Amino acid sequence: MPQHRSKDETYRAMQATRPGVLELVERPRPEPGTGEVLLRVEACGICGADAGTIDGQQFPRVPGHEVVGRIAAVGAGTPSHWRVGQRVGVGRLGGHCNACEQCRRGQFQLCGNQPFVGTSQDGGYAEMMVARSTGLVAIPDALGSEEAAPLLCAGIATFNALKKSGAQAGDLVAIQGIGGLGHLAVQYARKMGFKVVAIGRGEDIAKEVLSLGAHVYVDTRKEDAIARLQEMGGAQVVMTTITDSSAASALIPALAPQGTLLVVGVGKAPLTVSPGPLVVGERRVQGTITGTPFEAEKTLDFSVLANVLPRIETLPLERAGEAYARMKSGEARFRMVLTMREAS
Amino acid sequence: MPQHRSKDETYRAMQATRPGVLELVERPRPEPGTGEVLLRVEACGICGADAGTIDGQQFPRVPGHEVVGRIAAVGAGTPSHWRVGQRVGVGRLGGHCNACEQCRRGQFQLCGNQPFVGTSQDGGYAEMMVARSTGLVAIPDALGSEEAAPLLCAGIATFNALKKSGAQAGDLVAIQGIGGLGHLAVQYARKMGFKVVAIGRGEDIAKEVLSLGAHVYVDTRKEDAIARLQEMGGAQVVMTTITDSSAASALIPALAPQGTLLVVGVGKAPLTVSPGPLVVGERRVQGTITGTPFEAEKTLDFSVLANVLPRIETLPLERAGEAYARMKSGEARFRMVLTMREAS
Amino acid sequence: MPQHRSKDETYRAMQATRPGVLELVERPRPEPGTGEVLLRVEACGICGADAGTIDGQQFPRVPGHEVVGRIAAVGAGTPSHWRVGQRVGVGRLGGHCNACEQCRRGQFQLCGNQPFVGTSQDGGYAEMMVARSTGLVAIPDALGSEEAAPLLCAGIATFNALKKSGAQAGDLVAIQGIGGLGHLAVQYARKMGFKVVAIGRGEDIAKEVLSLGAHVYVDTRKEDAIARLQEMGGAQVVMTTITDSSAASALIPALAPQGTLLVVGVGKAPLTVSPGPLVVGERRVQGTITGTPFEAEKTLDFSVLANVLPRIETLPLERAGEAYARMKSGEARFRMVLTMREAS
Amino acid sequence: MPQHRSKDETYRAMQATRPGVLELVERPRPEPGTGEVLLRVEACGICGADAGTIDGQQFPRVPGHEVVGRIAAVGAGTPSHWRVGQRVGVGRLGGHCNACEQCRRGQFQLCGNQPFVGTSQDGGYAEMMVARSTGLVAIPDALGSEEAAPLLCAGIATFNALKKSGAQAGDLVAIQGIGGLGHLAVQYARKMGFKVVAIGRGEDIAKEVLSLGAHVYVDTRKEDAIARLQEMGGAQVVMTTITDSSAASALIPALAPQGTLLVVGVGKAPLTVSPGPLVVGERRVQGTITGTPFEAEKTLDFSVLANVLPRIETLPLERAGEAYARMKSGEARFRMVLTMREAS
Repeated sequence: MPQHRSKDETYRAMQATRPGVLELVERPRPEPGTGEVLLRVEACGICGADAGTIDGQQFPRVPGHEVVGRIAAVGAGTPSHWRVGQRVGVGRLGGHCNACEQCRRGQFQLCGNQPFVGTSQDGGYAEMMVARSTGLVAIPDALGSEEAAPLLCAGIATFNALKKSGAQAGDLVAIQGIGGLGHLAVQYARKMGFKVVAIGRGEDIAKEVLSLGAHVYVDTRKEDAIARLQEMGGAQVVMTTITDSSAASALIPALAPQGTLLVVGVGKAPLTVSPGPLVVGERRVQGTITGTPFEAEKTLDFSVLANVLPRIETLPLERAGEAYARMKSGEARFRMVLTMREAS
Repeated sequence: MPQHRSKDETYRAMQATRPGVLELVERPRPEPGTGEVLLRVEACGICGADAGTIDGQQFPRVPGHEVVGRIAAVGAGTPSHWRVGQRVGVGRLGGHCNACEQCRRGQFQLCGNQPFVGTSQDGGYAEMMVARSTGLVAIPDALGSEEAAPLLCAGIATFNALKKSGAQAGDLVAIQGIGGLGHLAVQYARKMGFKVVAIGRGEDIAKEVLSLGAHVYVDTRKEDAIARLQEMGGAQVVMTTITDSSAASALIPALAPQGTLLVVGVGKAPLTVSPGPLVVGERRVQGTITGTPFEAEKTLDFSVLANVLPRIETLPLERAGEAYARMKSGEARFRMVLTMREAS
Repeated sequence: MPQHRSKDETYRAMQATRPGVLELVERPRPEPGTGEVLLRVEACGICGADAGTIDGQQFPRVPGHEVVGRIAAVGAGTPSHWRVGQRVGVGRLGGHCNACEQCRRGQFQLCGNQPFVGTSQDGGYAEMMVARSTGLVAIPDALGSEEAAPLLCAGIATFNALKKSGAQAGDLVAIQGIGGLGHLAVQYARKMGFKVVAIGRGEDIAKEVLSLGAHVYVDTRKEDAIARLQEMGGAQVVMTTITDSSAASALIPALAPQGTLLVVGVGKAPLTVSPGPLVVGERRVQGTITGTPFEAEKTLDFSVLANVLPRIETLPLERAGEAYARMKSGEARFRMVLTMREAS
Repeated sequence: MPQHRSKDETYRAMQATRPGVLELVERPRPEPGTGEVLLRVEACGICGADAGTIDGQQFPRVPGHEVVGRIAAVGAGTPSHWRVGQRVGVGRLGGHCNACEQCRRGQFQLCGNQPFVGTSQDGGYAEMMVARSTGLVAIPDALGSEEAAPLLCAGIATFNALKKSGAQAGDLVAIQGIGGLGHLAVQYARKMGFKVVAIGRGEDIAKEVLSLGAHVYVDTRKEDAIARLQEMGGAQVVMTTITDSSAASALIPALAPQGTLLVVGVGKAPLTVSPGPLVVGERRVQGTITGTPFEAEKTLDFSVLANVLPRIETLPLERAGEAYARMKSGEARFRMVLTMREAS
């Protein structure tokens, strides 16, 4: 590391260098290009989808797409409402193009020209990061950076999906998988007025899940979730946050007529969907992706309004490997978040 | 056939007596019970779903659920707007209960207490049939009985599904499978203002499909439907009318972002649905069942308004076996309809 | 009062006999007809709409359409799930016909053949009342009869309207008029995840309205509601529960783009709606009526789930005049409910 | 007119210089700024809303917001898919900002920072015009410029409103006012599968309106439109294209239950809306504005697909005053379009 550089001349990042390996590196400070900003990162959540990078194929790459930081520099052509010093966030979708068909439809989350943060561009396991201004999310003062970070992927993914699900106040909504996404989904669902059934594995989290707002907790190690939901009249929505496609599609018979299996996680195996319950009960299987920066801001606003916060464990950037392992093992309660010290 | 009975004392029916066998029988004229009517059948369409009865397990049973006839007798407690002599129809769903949860929600098509005509109660391959009055559909004068019959299942199944699909005028809508359902779906889709792609097998029907209103015909023996649809920008809706689940789910990648695979046919094998295209493109797989008697009347009204008619081949009741075989072989152009002579 | 009758042979009712006058009368016990039940009334709320009867033109008539009681007798042809002794309710809409176009569409609340309880048939200011079984609402054990009564009109009118409004969690929802309907609307809106602004007159209720769940209370005697809502970005929904049409339509400029003025109360004067804000901001004015018995049950279930209860003052049946006067004066906090002693 | 300028150095425009007066002027050729293009105008429709400019208050101003032309020059920062020589159009909404709340919601038509073409910026009664690139609409080759022009305001205003109306194939849709907007609305409505009632004044257009696709024509000079629509069961949608607010709101009682009065024209007087029919029939009054450039392209595509064309009368630019007068008098059949000769 060159001694003569000031603290601003370089920054530290944890980059994936080969499958499964994160390595601390020092890099020169980048300049934001046209329409871009440079962020000084304050916190970055660790999402299950980071595995796609860390165990991936394109190296080196800095993972992380639940990023909160402050704008350190602004590139040319960036709208004037983004200012140096402002605290902002970036999620999975790295900024839409404003020109493609989906953008002109106003469906920015489907833009075909946007980078996936932490996958097709470097992400937030780092002290600094360059981001497209179209992907920026304003962070309300009421949220700490460590709290806000997980809301930028896990939060919006679940809140937005529930909003798009068609479920209405009082409807039975089941959340399958009580991890980083699920523990937020339970809270949002409760605060949106749904009757909430949390479906997880193991007795140890039962009490905590109820404290998050679930009306009922089903431990699949002891109880059959399908039978339980059917007994309650069937779920209007089952949101599955897990990547085990087989377990996800198994819950279709637990849907009420005209109910929806809401898929927010991308498993590798296909879902197995019997036409019978779909047709005879007019059920559907619906996928949703996180959402637009505007929707992310709505997610943050609602989180403040309704007091929905992620439960997190924090570790400093240089312990990213340990944090990632803890996420993978399922031990995290419920989201790991990296924090950044000042670059030295 | 007993000589001493008047023509009203008995009626003839084609009943399934063992797997694959239809047999002409004579039965005593039934009395309609409370809330029921007795129909003198004029025409009955032959639907692919009749196989569930004819090749089924519960014998004897009279198949047929695209029934048009005249009311011959009215049971107690039948609403007064149903009158003897009136021409009415009955589809797949044999009359809802008005008391269960789905009925009290107003979703009669999902009633858990309704018979399936031709399966759990005797259907329309017969000169007479008893029907619940809650399942009756008024037939407009502008439609002949043979024309109206297929609209009561194949017609409503496709028209209603298109209405519920969310597709809007100008959207690209593909119809997979150009048989009894598909040839009606193509016509409805065209008259609803969609851009219509018909997907079928074989060159011989190409010209006729275009004359039904398809803008494009894709012969899957010669062309890859996925590539063709993607080239056109992706379909907002693919309605699959076939029972080959594997071929149906294969078209998911041909959907535009936020597109819908609309499933109206019930194949035995499960659909295989990759989570990726669902989540990243916010696509969905949606099942729909035919609809309520009111919706059937809307289907008939629209058919008259927009001049949508099934193309049919008729055979007399006693040749039901031959008609059924012709439907099964895929040779029918496009719907087989049985016609009833006066009982002798 | 004839001495020789048993307590079941007669019942007492408060009937409107001439404009503005309620009179205690004794009547012979009625028999329920086909499809009807006889209720022994336990509680009946007093709604602003009762004025239409009490100050009305058709006398004598027993007012009251927020009725909870127990089934005392069941007429012929009533579905078997309604049993003697069961506690049930009846709201404004007295039971649909199951045969008209709107019923066959499943939109029972729009049935053209239903009585308006307390207006076109005798209502619940009485110890006994005859009701159509299609209008019955099951009451959950968790609710007392006095608490449940106001939910059958004021509750469903506001809860159902919010469900149909298209507002989503986090949206700004304003409730104009904090009386019998409004104080429930505030609670429902909060529990459905909206940001809630209550608009009322006078400082004295400020604290209580905030305790009901409003995030903001606007006292129109001291503050301009339009300016306040615009400052907050405009309301997605303004639900107006008042009958002053002029004050209601005045709030249209306080709607956000694509916002809705939700009208649940029927004033005599017309709303005055400028086309400009409607067109340029794609705003709308939407009316809703209470809802179906099924929706009433959903309202009660949600009230139990989310702990939404009316705040009531009770008076015995024979003090109905006093209770009505208290409602009219605006002093009630917030709903008057009549309670019935055993008939003597 | 300076002799030494080449044909590209100046252009001619008809500008409003004082109330009611259009004047032919010659102006120097402008340069497009950042994000702008310069158009060589080929055709410009004359819309009723032009009165707001011509009889307006801010002079001088060039009216016209149904503009088709070719890109003559491209300013800096314009997306590369807009190229010199390309034929494009501009409607009422002059290009959104991509940065405000409504733009970030994807609702560009509601952008608060967009110019109104022909009102807050110079429009298309001219040989040249500067336009924001975010407001540009690609014109399909299948449409002539004179045909395409009216589709950019009258076309999209009616087509988009019908799409947003919730009406479904077979529903009764009435169009009030058969002029520039109405004669397109009738065609779109027919091609979208609605049952179409056209409501106009005078017998002379009856035959032509039926040839445009109306199923029924109601001449309000001879017949009561309310009674006629009620007789037909009530309209699901009444789209009013007129600016007589009193006549528009008079049709609310002609709506079916849950029907919509769709307001696309902005009259000066307020609509008068009785709460009764709104609440008891759950009706609504809904305003819509034209739409986004993407939606305009969908309008043009549908017009080609379904063969919907405006019926127009053309006059050269310098006769704009005469054309405008003809529009105002109601004599135009049905849209006046200005055509531009080459600048001399």
